[in-house]
Amino acid sequence: MAIITLITDFGWRDGYVGAMKGVIARLAPDATIVDIAHDVPRGDIAHAAWVVKTATPPFPDGTIHLVVVDPGVGGARRAVVVHASADFYVGPDNGVFAYIAHVQHACELAPPAGASKTFHGRDVFAPAAAALARGERPTGAAIALFGALPWGPRAAGAGRIVHIDHFGNLISDLPPDETGVAIAIGGHTLPVVDTFESVERGQLLAYVGSAGTIEIAVRDGSAASLLHAARGLPVLPARGAGPYR
Amino acid sequence: MAIITLITDFGWRDGYVGAMKGVIARLAPDATIVDIAHDVPRGDIAHAAWVVKTATPPFPDGTIHLVVVDPGVGGARRAVVVHASADFYVGPDNGVFAYIAHVQHACELAPPAGASKTFHGRDVFAPAAAALARGERPTGAAIALFGALPWGPRAAGAGRIVHIDHFGNLISDLPPDETGVAIAIGGHTLPVVDTFESVERGQLLAYVGSAGTIEIAVRDGSAASLLHAARGLPVLPARGAGPYR
Amino acid sequence: MAIITLITDFGWRDGYVGAMKGVIARLAPDATIVDIAHDVPRGDIAHAAWVVKTATPPFPDGTIHLVVVDPGVGGARRAVVVHASADFYVGPDNGVFAYIAHVQHACELAPPAGASKTFHGRDVFAPAAAALARGERPTGAAIALFGALPWGPRAAGAGRIVHIDHFGNLISDLPPDETGVAIAIGGHTLPVVDTFESVERGQLLAYVGSAGTIEIAVRDGSAASLLHAARGLPVLPARGAGPYR
Repeated sequence: MAIITLITDFGWRDGYVGAMKGVIARLAPDATIVDIAHDVPRGDIAHAAWVVKTATPPFPDGTIHLVVVDPGVGGARRAVVVHASADFYVGPDNGVFAYIAHVQHACELAPPAGASKTFHGRDVFAPAAAALARGERPTGAAIALFGALPWGPRAAGAGRIVHIDHFGNLISDLPPDETGVAIAIGGHTLPVVDTFESVERGQLLAYVGSAGTIEIAVRDGSAASLLHAARGLPVLPARGAGPYR
Repeated sequence: MAIITLITDFGWRDGYVGAMKGVIARLAPDATIVDIAHDVPRGDIAHAAWVVKTATPPFPDGTIHLVVVDPGVGGARRAVVVHASADFYVGPDNGVFAYIAHVQHACELAPPAGASKTFHGRDVFAPAAAALARGERPTGAAIALFGALPWGPRAAGAGRIVHIDHFGNLISDLPPDETGVAIAIGGHTLPVVDTFESVERGQLLAYVGSAGTIEIAVRDGSAASLLHAARGLPVLPARGAGPYR
Repeated sequence: MAIITLITDFGWRDGYVGAMKGVIARLAPDATIVDIAHDVPRGDIAHAAWVVKTATPPFPDGTIHLVVVDPGVGGARRAVVVHASADFYVGPDNGVFAYIAHVQHACELAPPAGASKTFHGRDVFAPAAAALARGERPTGAAIALFGALPWGPRAAGAGRIVHIDHFGNLISDLPPDETGVAIAIGGHTLPVVDTFESVERGQLLAYVGSAGTIEIAVRDGSAASLLHAARGLPVLPARGAGPYR
């Protein structure tokens, strides 16, 4: 029984999520639908890409991930099906799949006749996911995915904030093995500690986060608010601990 | 295996959604529960009615839709079960089912003994949906549903904003075949275009939306904010394109 | 087929909920995952405890409730598995299980090798819930749970606000059989009435809520806003009805 997961910016107040689920339930009645995220900030492709990167790996082989954060719906961007490792991804080729590794095959998805111009989630992507769940496999010509994220490729020894989560934690792409005992961000030098309780409440800390990279947080608070941080902000290895320990 | 969908204004922070699901899981263990929307604005019946209209049609025949947006719970409004086309709807008779067509049978639902006065979702509607999922059929005397929405019936050649979505898009009930090349709303005349990319970022546009009627949006923005629009605002066919193209 | 429910403060915008579901889907493919609440206010243990208390009882025997509201993750608080009545609870021992009655067995859960320090939901709790779903039973030494809530034990004849819901309703722990025809809260005396329609719109009312205790609401409004109420505020039996009837 196939699993189809959903990642969208549709929120939980309109009929959009339900319409997609209805299409799947009708076309692939044996599939299990799993909600991952529907409150992705509107049109925030880089945010969605990070959700794909962090939420999808634990799922069993063969899972189908449906990602509809699609501000260019109906326009020039392509609709795609991606086969990577043992899994499938369906959505717009706008960067939401930028972190996917081991792509074996990606191909364009043609909108069916009569598809709306503004709701490909219901009319293009959900039917494609349902077809995958029924065992159909995409046969289109292989294409290269559009993989760009706003902050470009990372240089060795330097990271950037690539995601800001619901708690205001700042997640970087700096790997721990390129970090010493401390990191520098926005004028602060922070020791890399084990866990939130290593510092007092309201204090900044850096640690190896659940994505395996350096994160910056405030214990029982929001680092995003305290540092007025945005994605792209540099996170660099530093030599020692600063005033926040 | 029956599907039971949920549409509520309970949000995702309390125990209300869970209590309803627990009742269903206990009384109809084979039913599949599907979340459609829980962030319907509190007590917003017309909003819920539009979610019912747009989210439920794709579901397979026999689906049971449980709708609990019920500011009058425990009061004079009736609890009802509706059989329309091949589907079932359970909820308060307060207008949430105003758009349902092809009603074959609607009847009142009596609260079971011991039902709370303020949580019919758990004590009245969820058990009724579970009974439908088990194959029981309502046998009460047929009643006429309360179908009123605040903006009354539509006159030919004139539409109104009937829903404002999460993106700030304004959805009207004006059908495209009563529209020319442009529409008028709130002092603006807008061309009816194909898709968001037909205009520049931040510009207003009108298009045939995923519900099959005219919608007004701002590309990468919110038409609701830009136009200070509320539901009920007229949307009229117009002769030409105005300053926003 | 086991049911695993989820209660978290992760929100619906990041990959955290999805990662937990992926772990469950991989380790216990036959389990049914049910979302109860993901918008618990961040780190609000007492709020989560009330959700556990009110959402979990209707579920069938054997249900596994996974509760991840865990501001002390990776620190001194223990990870636990609780067997109470016929059900299981998995989460941090920080008070989220304070209302659970009939505990038969509680024991500590050791983080598996390689577990992250900041995402026990994915690395500790979800695997433990999946193991329960597969029929494994915890065998650790029995411990006593940390059951403290900020407002301490209740004195007979006196209640406190213990939860404020999404609608701004104030839920107390005062049982109706210790209440007369009216209650006093924050300088107001309110009659205990049947339902919202017993008062005019915008008026305060008290009633026996769906948890079986006294609640205070404003019809079509928010009692939390009107009374500037916080949890812990006393709710006392009173002799008669005051100015709000």
